[in-house]
Parts: sequence; C-alpha cells; structure tokens
Amino acid sequence: MRFTSQTSSDGVTEQLFILGETPGVLWTPQDALGTRPVILMGHGGGQHKKAPGVEARARRFVAEGGFAVVAIDAPHHGERPKGEAFNRLAAENRALIAAGENPAALVPAMHELLAGQAVAEWQAVLTAVQQLDHVGAGPVGYWGLSMGCGLGVPLVAAEPRVRAAVLGLLGWSGLAGTAARITVPVEFLLQWDDRLVPRDQGLALFDALASPDKTLHANPGDHGEVPAFETDSSLRFFTRHLGQDAPAPV
Amino acid sequence: MRFTSQTSSDGVTEQLFILGETPGVLWTPQDALGTRPVILMGHGGGQHKKAPGVEARARRFVAEGGFAVVAIDAPHHGERPKGEAFNRLAAENRALIAAGENPAALVPAMHELLAGQAVAEWQAVLTAVQQLDHVGAGPVGYWGLSMGCGLGVPLVAAEPRVRAAVLGLLGWSGLAGTAARITVPVEFLLQWDDRLVPRDQGLALFDALASPDKTLHANPGDHGEVPAFETDSSLRFFTRHLGQDAPAPV
Repeated sequence: MRFTSQTSSDGVTEQLFILGETPGVLWTPQDALGTRPVILMGHGGGQHKKAPGVEARARRFVAEGGFAVVAIDAPHHGERPKGEAFNRLAAENRALIAAGENPAALVPAMHELLAGQAVAEWQAVLTAVQQLDHVGAGPVGYWGLSMGCGLGVPLVAAEPRVRAAVLGLLGWSGLAGTAARITVPVEFLLQWDDRLVPRDQGLALFDALASPDKTLHANPGDHGEVPAFETDSSLRFFTRHLGQDAPAPV
Repeated sequence: MRFTSQTSSDGVTEQLFILGETPGVLWTPQDALGTRPVILMGHGGGQHKKAPGVEARARRFVAEGGFAVVAIDAPHHGERPKGEAFNRLAAENRALIAAGENPAALVPAMHELLAGQAVAEWQAVLTAVQQLDHVGAGPVGYWGLSMGCGLGVPLVAAEPRVRAAVLGLLGWSGLAGTAARITVPVEFLLQWDDRLVPRDQGLALFDALASPDKTLHANPGDHGEVPAFETDSSLRFFTRHLGQDAPAPV
C-alpha cells in the first residue's frame, strides 16, 4: 500500500493510496491514534471513490463517529482503465437510455462482470488498512447502494470481518442466493418510486437476506433521491453495531 | 378536565384525568413551565392508557425529548365500560383464536366500531391539555400502532393540529381512502413476518399515505416484536418534525 498524498481539513485526514492496481482513499480523524472501526464505502455505477456523495458521507462518519472510512475505485471506474467487456456494456447502456428504454436489464451483467474482482480487491485493501497504526484490526462495516450494493452483497457474504452493512437501491433475482448467505445486521434502503429498481425486486432482495437483525427503510422518490436523514440513520446503525458498546459477534 | 391524581418520579410527572367519559393520563417533565410539543399516544387492541409499552415509551419521550405525552383509554378499553357490540366482536375474536383461526378478518369491524368515537375524544382531550400552562398550544404528534394505527389514521386525516405521526402494524383496504387524506410526515412501522397483518396489506397502507415525507421501517418478526431501536427512531422523528428546529408547517 503506497500513499500518494495526505491532506487534513475540518479535523479529517485524507490519504490517497494505491494497492496493486487499486486506487483508494482513506479518511481518518486528524491525529488519530489506535484501533477504530473501519467502514468500507462502495460507490454507485459510473461514480468513483471521491464522488461528492461518497466523500461527504465519509467525512461525516469520521468526524461524528470516529470511524476510519475507505473507498476505492471499483473496477473500470474512476481513474482505472476501462476494459473491452465493460465498454461494450456501457455502450449498450447508453443506447438504451438514448432510445428511452430502461437500462435495468443490463445491471446484473454489469455487476457480475465487476463483482469477482471487486471482492478480492476490497479484501486486500481491508487487510492493508488494518495494519496501519491509526486504523488497526477493529470491527468492520460496509456501506454501498445500487452498484455499491451489487458488489457489496458478494463481499459481505464472503468476508467474515464485515460485521454490519448498509445496502439497498437494488434488486435482481440472481443476487438472492448470495444475499441468503448474509447473516450480519443490515440496514437496507429502498426508494419507493425507483424507476431503475422495481419495488417488488427491492423488497425481494431485502427478504432474501438471512440476517436475523435486518431493517428496511423505504422512502418516496426516485433512485437518486434517498433523503438526507438516512445518512444520520446509517451513522447510528454503524455506531450501534461497530461502536465501543456494540455486542461481541457470536 | 378533572385531575384525579398526580405523582412524579425520575423527572417525569404523571397526572391521571377524566374528560367527560374519557379517562386519560398526561406525562410531562417535572416542574415543566411553558409550551411544548405534545404527543398523543394510542394503545393497541385489548391494551389501555397505562399498558407497560405505552408508559415506558411515554416516559422516554418526556425525559429525553421534553415532550408532553397524553394517552387515553380507547372506547371499550381499560377502565371504560364495554358495550354490547364490542363484546360480541371480542367473543368472536376469542372463538377464532380458540379454533386456531386468524382473527384478522374482524379487525376492520372492530376499528370501525371504535374510530368515530375515538377521533372526537382525542380532539377534545387535545383541546383540553393545550389549555394547561405546562403543555400549551405547541405542535402535535400522534403515535399509534395496530389498533392505535386504526384509530390514528382517521384522527390524523381529520385533525389539522397533528403535524407528524408514527403509524403501522396494520393494513386493510378500507383504510386506504382515509390514509390518502394524510399529508403530514409519517414514520410507518411494519413487521416483516406479521401473522396478523399480511405483508402486502401493510405495504399497501404505507403506499396509500399521501404524505410527501413518509418513511417505512420494516423489521423481521411477528406483530408484537417491533425492535427497541424503533423507539429511539420515533423519538428522533418527533424531535425532527415537532422540535424547536422543526420547519414551520406549509
């Protein structure tokens, strides 16, 4: 893990890094010392590790919760090279939108293309950041909606270090089997009027999660219109499950 | 409004009262002075104004949020006389349960029997408590699940003083038209494995609410198994919408 820049503002330190071919960013409380919970934050399709929503949420989690937050560019996203298979799907996606069609049918193929690689990258990044003195091997959470959920479901199912997850804005039947292997607490967000994710498919993905402690938060509005108070709720959720007073995993 | 007893403990004052034929209880911060938001708290079927869940929740809202909370015995509940029509429905209900049948089909008749009277009683109690020096005419919220939702939906639809409501654990099609007249913010609770309220009917009642600001919280478990963290969420919801920093109604 090679750090390429470090800046601090408003009590939050931001460090850009490269691990293998994965560019990432780590936010921690300024002058942080010792072990703290870490949150892996996935971005949406077409976004990147420092998309405004990702960065604003990460800085709140650090400043208000004392968490470390790490984000990486998903495969074929941000500053990473785009491969041929990805470009073909992206072009199909643009063509559907241009024709006034719903591109939702391409979502599973896109996420499946990225997921295997993304899971391994997240696992390597987690191992690396937990070796840092100001992060350490504390409890781990995952936050990701839409494509961040599509890549997060296989990660959370595969990675026992992840102890709680905020997921949502997604639903397709191919993901249900993987979701059924998730048993950690989940807060699942659904937009009631989502034009990209049919309501019943989002509800079905929530239903498929095997977690005994799962909670669905549904709000009116389209895919991108998650209300701001859900960020407060995510922060409380992670504090409850990963904070100092959180119960030990069983 | 005639007060029949007053006690204080843990910083909360409890006053029992009678208004006409309606017995009620008012909880306020001890030594409270001046206007504060008031929350009307409905109880579930077969319960009463001082059922343990009602009282525990009310005391938290008072102690942690500075609210006034008022609960009344619904018609035919608590210390009130039971009428013939009510007794007939209650006997049918017991017979269905004894026969291993689901009594859900009787719910609409039961709530319709009670609702008209309950709405008028809540309105009179609200008018009376808002004339008290330690309550005043501040913003008003309503909290009620199950039967407390069945009586709350017509109240919130009819009463413009109510500016925010926590509802849920209910769904039947006869209520949808009334729900469609509700436009204030609503937090709606649904139990994912509710054996009394079919999931699709609960979702349909949430869907029917006309409120632009509504949020659905669904959790695993049966009718009576709402997780404790939803009380925290209700408190934050009322603080957001009725507290000092809440936006003015439009």
